[in-house]
Amino acid sequence: MPRYKLTIEYDGTGFVGWQRQDNGISVQQCLEEAIFKYRGENPAVTASGRTDAGVHALGQVVHFDLARGDDTDTIRDAINFHLRPHEISVLQAEEADEHFHARFSAVERQYIYRIGTRRAPYMIQAHRLWHVPVPLDVGSMNEAAQHLVGTYDFTTFRDSACQAKSPIKTVSEIGLTREEDIISLFIRAPSFLHHMVRNITGSLMYVGSGKWSVEDFISARNAQDRTKGGPTAPPDGLYFLKAVY
Amino acid sequence: MPRYKLTIEYDGTGFVGWQRQDNGISVQQCLEEAIFKYRGENPAVTASGRTDAGVHALGQVVHFDLARGDDTDTIRDAINFHLRPHEISVLQAEEADEHFHARFSAVERQYIYRIGTRRAPYMIQAHRLWHVPVPLDVGSMNEAAQHLVGTYDFTTFRDSACQAKSPIKTVSEIGLTREEDIISLFIRAPSFLHHMVRNITGSLMYVGSGKWSVEDFISARNAQDRTKGGPTAPPDGLYFLKAVY
Repeated sequence: MPRYKLTIEYDGTGFVGWQRQDNGISVQQCLEEAIFKYRGENPAVTASGRTDAGVHALGQVVHFDLARGDDTDTIRDAINFHLRPHEISVLQAEEADEHFHARFSAVERQYIYRIGTRRAPYMIQAHRLWHVPVPLDVGSMNEAAQHLVGTYDFTTFRDSACQAKSPIKTVSEIGLTREEDIISLFIRAPSFLHHMVRNITGSLMYVGSGKWSVEDFISARNAQDRTKGGPTAPPDGLYFLKAVY
Repeated sequence: MPRYKLTIEYDGTGFVGWQRQDNGISVQQCLEEAIFKYRGENPAVTASGRTDAGVHALGQVVHFDLARGDDTDTIRDAINFHLRPHEISVLQAEEADEHFHARFSAVERQYIYRIGTRRAPYMIQAHRLWHVPVPLDVGSMNEAAQHLVGTYDFTTFRDSACQAKSPIKTVSEIGLTREEDIISLFIRAPSFLHHMVRNITGSLMYVGSGKWSVEDFISARNAQDRTKGGPTAPPDGLYFLKAVY
């Protein structure tokens, strides 16, 4: 059975997240239903990583098998046709090796988080960023963020419901930049804990607003205690950017 | 009576346009109702230029008078509070001279038009651009566009329902740039005819896709005949950027 890899974009606003759930529409369900409408087959679709309700993707990667293969451009266009009107788009379809696994073969995940700092609410970018209408010092946020690069116990930035066996993760790179009133955080790591990027972002917001010093941030990291961390930033500003294989 | 100038942003998707109409919600109506809720006054709100249904604004300018003035930060925040949940945001409120008129004092209007050229539909940018999933040659589009700079009869690019007395307009500047799969058109002029930017964009799309040569574009301009122009680009990609006073 040929295996296919899709790179997909979605607006997470209207979804309960990647994974099928009883309380609403998931990205996984929409993709599986679109494949069924196109091909009459019911393969399970596996993602490189789950995203939560409201979290967007610019380059989520998934795989599935088909009994009867097809041209990859046709697969892309046909699934896009049947995905309508759901806000999911297949950017690329590729044939993959039978050993390729969207989740287990990925050696790195990349996320972006966007914060809008102007006073007025955002309309063109509604649901596309976290509106924090206070001045944020991106320099100190970036300085604090560098203290996450490396291997640490990330319990402080881990959701209490996280099911990972270990809170030890390795952040390969993190950086924050400002363009006018928008701050963008980029982070990459082999893998992440549940809510890890959003909890890191909430804590960095404390640093940027002056509530915390860089030392406070380091202390929070070292506490290995979620209650010592900052708030969980909302899903609106988070984008799954890329999975690296 | 103090006069106030507001700079506003809106997502045009859900509106029938700037102007009050019977068939839906207008930006003007929402602003006037928000001012009434805030101040108990019913001033008419005048814009620098009307925008059509679905057209966005990043920096529309409006003015209105209040019998009882207020601090400009309070005006901005109070109107924003009462505008919810409509997708309009007051970016700035300023006191204006009694002779200031959002429409008649403006010496220039600036628009942006965005075209997305990738094959796959856009989700994060849904309703934020025109999806033209074919290769477009931005170089030839830009070359053709330069033949609009100056004073011309723009009948070819004027909606048949346009109520302007004269089809003669002066384009001060137009330019197209590409960033990855997104083409952005920037245009500024003292004033525009109805649908002028969208009709220009539709005709430039013909040039970019190879359907028209630059000479065909010039011939269309010279024809002074709307039926010789290209299609009207959809409102989704159009942004009122700025009014200059």
